[in-house]
Amino acid sequence: MFRFDESKCYKMPAHFGGSDYVAASTRYHDTVNLAFRYATDRAMLEAYIPEAFTLVRPEVTIGFSQCRGIDWMAGSYYNLVMVSAPVRFDGARDHVEAAFALVVWENKTTPILTGREETGVPKIFADIEDLHVFEGEYFTTLSFEGNAFLTLRFSDAVPLGEQELAAMKVIPMDIIGWRYIPRVGGPGAELSQPIFFPQHCEVKRAWTGKGALQWTEQTWLQNPMQAHIIKALAGLPVLEMGAAMMIEGAAVLSAPLARVLE
Amino acid sequence: MFRFDESKCYKMPAHFGGSDYVAASTRYHDTVNLAFRYATDRAMLEAYIPEAFTLVRPEVTIGFSQCRGIDWMAGSYYNLVMVSAPVRFDGARDHVEAAFALVVWENKTTPILTGREETGVPKIFADIEDLHVFEGEYFTTLSFEGNAFLTLRFSDAVPLGEQELAAMKVIPMDIIGWRYIPRVGGPGAELSQPIFFPQHCEVKRAWTGKGALQWTEQTWLQNPMQAHIIKALAGLPVLEMGAAMMIEGAAVLSAPLARVLE
Amino acid sequence: MFRFDESKCYKMPAHFGGSDYVAASTRYHDTVNLAFRYATDRAMLEAYIPEAFTLVRPEVTIGFSQCRGIDWMAGSYYNLVMVSAPVRFDGARDHVEAAFALVVWENKTTPILTGREETGVPKIFADIEDLHVFEGEYFTTLSFEGNAFLTLRFSDAVPLGEQELAAMKVIPMDIIGWRYIPRVGGPGAELSQPIFFPQHCEVKRAWTGKGALQWTEQTWLQNPMQAHIIKALAGLPVLEMGAAMMIEGAAVLSAPLARVLE
Amino acid sequence: MFRFDESKCYKMPAHFGGSDYVAASTRYHDTVNLAFRYATDRAMLEAYIPEAFTLVRPEVTIGFSQCRGIDWMAGSYYNLVMVSAPVRFDGARDHVEAAFALVVWENKTTPILTGREETGVPKIFADIEDLHVFEGEYFTTLSFEGNAFLTLRFSDAVPLGEQELAAMKVIPMDIIGWRYIPRVGGPGAELSQPIFFPQHCEVKRAWTGKGALQWTEQTWLQNPMQAHIIKALAGLPVLEMGAAMMIEGAAVLSAPLARVLE
Repeated sequence: MFRFDESKCYKMPAHFGGSDYVAASTRYHDTVNLAFRYATDRAMLEAYIPEAFTLVRPEVTIGFSQCRGIDWMAGSYYNLVMVSAPVRFDGARDHVEAAFALVVWENKTTPILTGREETGVPKIFADIEDLHVFEGEYFTTLSFEGNAFLTLRFSDAVPLGEQELAAMKVIPMDIIGWRYIPRVGGPGAELSQPIFFPQHCEVKRAWTGKGALQWTEQTWLQNPMQAHIIKALAGLPVLEMGAAMMIEGAAVLSAPLARVLE
Repeated sequence: MFRFDESKCYKMPAHFGGSDYVAASTRYHDTVNLAFRYATDRAMLEAYIPEAFTLVRPEVTIGFSQCRGIDWMAGSYYNLVMVSAPVRFDGARDHVEAAFALVVWENKTTPILTGREETGVPKIFADIEDLHVFEGEYFTTLSFEGNAFLTLRFSDAVPLGEQELAAMKVIPMDIIGWRYIPRVGGPGAELSQPIFFPQHCEVKRAWTGKGALQWTEQTWLQNPMQAHIIKALAGLPVLEMGAAMMIEGAAVLSAPLARVLE
Repeated sequence: MFRFDESKCYKMPAHFGGSDYVAASTRYHDTVNLAFRYATDRAMLEAYIPEAFTLVRPEVTIGFSQCRGIDWMAGSYYNLVMVSAPVRFDGARDHVEAAFALVVWENKTTPILTGREETGVPKIFADIEDLHVFEGEYFTTLSFEGNAFLTLRFSDAVPLGEQELAAMKVIPMDIIGWRYIPRVGGPGAELSQPIFFPQHCEVKRAWTGKGALQWTEQTWLQNPMQAHIIKALAGLPVLEMGAAMMIEGAAVLSAPLARVLE
Repeated sequence: MFRFDESKCYKMPAHFGGSDYVAASTRYHDTVNLAFRYATDRAMLEAYIPEAFTLVRPEVTIGFSQCRGIDWMAGSYYNLVMVSAPVRFDGARDHVEAAFALVVWENKTTPILTGREETGVPKIFADIEDLHVFEGEYFTTLSFEGNAFLTLRFSDAVPLGEQELAAMKVIPMDIIGWRYIPRVGGPGAELSQPIFFPQHCEVKRAWTGKGALQWTEQTWLQNPMQAHIIKALAGLPVLEMGAAMMIEGAAVLSAPLARVLE
């Protein structure tokens, strides 16, 4: 019979065997990122931030990443869009600031599973186009079963100079997820906890530019599991659009170094 | 700020709001199922059965389901293949027999997430072709990023008569999953528990026939997260192939009525 | 060296060998069809009808077909949406009425190629959802690279009685395509000809109901090859929506019996 | 009514309007190419070369291209694999050497249609993975409905130096297709002609390395339209594997400058 070994790491299905715990990072060798930032209404945004945190600034960041050469996926690839807000956690032990992952859309199941179950990053599925690039405009579309709910456009790219690049060689990209595993056979949680997940980006080339985004609300029939999320985010006013950035580089994710915040 | 309400049900991302707990079932209005059964080596199969169970028979069932008209997905659809073995659980409180879900492949992310997190069904992703039907042969292929690892074929279909059909109007399809949520920042489990998940199938039409299956082992480079699972299952000898069945009907899943086995 | 044989039939790439000409039909064993019909403005519709024809009625038909068990594709499947208008051709030899295929969207390349090259059916690609079925509503979405441009909904289904069914056992579905192969290295045609393509539908079950459709115009950036087609069709006024139908059955296509209209 | 204008260029469906002929090229701004070359048996290869040509060398080239930033597709993208052999055409007017396109697999329908109908490039559909990149190995898989039939691997990459790069700044990539449009309602051709299609590649970075390829033959049930092509190519012996190359750059395709060979 199969016996669990507490010194091993398992993923469901666990009973085909686990692996040793290795406190190491994994590398995404080739990433293209778009990051859009905008100021929004504090009270409206706070409605989606668990009260364990304080909101550092009433600001939303939408980050698109086209990830290639991913070590833990044997060199495979996927795209993601993360919507986050800067929060601060002051607990009995931990005092950290990081991006609180409001929601992350990804176009492959494999990283969705590990992200949710291992670090509480609230990943859900969408079709996400690779970047289309036409006459200086970069754009992508997120859709679910044929219905687009978010488009992102980046234009007027101005490359950063050598000096600026040197100053931003490594960008910390730590995020906080909230892992929630429901109780079986009733309401409420079996597990509900904030998790700090350290990661960073190594910059090879970068551009500033102009970002534009467009949400399209969905009906329950079009997208029954996500319509309320899209409605919430589409309803956040864009009070002031900040400068957008495009970054080519690599990403280093340190899931084994994540920790539950206390 | 967002505050969790213990009387509500949440899915990640939780902070956009929860829903009331409803002890109800959900219906899959239109399903086509293939079920193949074969005797295998007891010791080899037991190696993948957690010791909390006893193996009722050294038998593997491979079930393909083409599911359409799914209520909780607003009428959408997906395909799945479940590999299971009949087990018995005798605990302090519970005494049940059901199909232990060794692994389930599905071709959509949404049901993978709820299955894993709410009932411990070890669902992972594969591309699964809808049934091809040609000159009395029904077949499908499971693949990951272009590499087929399992094909299923059903032929020589003989329809069940009225009397036989009447006798099998409703088929219990209860399954047991093992929910495993890893500890953060180290080996071992934060949550590790068997879950009983009641479901049944309503039969409209049924056929007996001949089943054939073919596993193709994968390298780590082809399928890094699943190669060891495929290798394990491909290695189980087919000592005697039982009769195969095809069933058209509906399925009723009662996830809210699931319970942790004790 | 490879030598063409004029007694053989070839598809590109031709040089791997051809097949014998067989004046036979091919069967789609399992089809679900939705057909919506509406009256529109005659002059506006005629702008898209080649002058070789006369428009029988200022009427547009939008037909969705979910095709399974397709013999020539070894039992595989695809979905299509055809937009057509009833035309009459009176030539030196031929005098026929049929549905002129204004455009056909399909979600697989293989039938697109044969349809265009062998019978001039103007097939182009779209992602087309299988029918979603929820509480008596049937719906699907056509999209291109994530952007929906057409949704179809069918509701209030009333099944046809035995007598009505018997009266419509076989429905002729003949269509006319216009095969256009461009000249190389300049404007104009190398081949430009109307083709009559006989097909029919065998009805197993049928329902009348209420149809609804919604076009969403696209920008050139969203859909550079199709935006003008969608704009043209979306611009045709729906003067009067006729009754919609849903039909389950089989289809018989007789491409080898097609002929150039003269 | 719609009237064709011989001074315009049309694609099916033609009746929604044509465009002006422009004798211009189109640019693929971002391409990654793998090229494998091997010597094979002359007689076996010649069996697939139309007798209008002479085979320059008994050599097969397999080229993979990951194309991004494609102008005529509004910045969209697709992957392709071309299998070709070097041929010479000596006609009444034309005397050219180019790569004869034996077959081209592409993972989007749009370029398949224009390639076939406008320049006779024998494009057919396959799922083609973007390059996986893991520890210095680059690999991709071609599959059809879940069944892989070709894998390509490139390793031991050695970058070309400045001088070598300067010497190969622009690589001519002219190809010859054979446009074959069948007669309607019988065997034989309505159109059958060789077409010269000028294109070239601009090199930004390049590497030499080691190439490996693996064909997997398919049954008719797995791939009814392509099994005979795969069987033919898989049957060509690899007498000597040449050096493989990887090239990053751009491609310039001049379809409007193509011409029928005479």
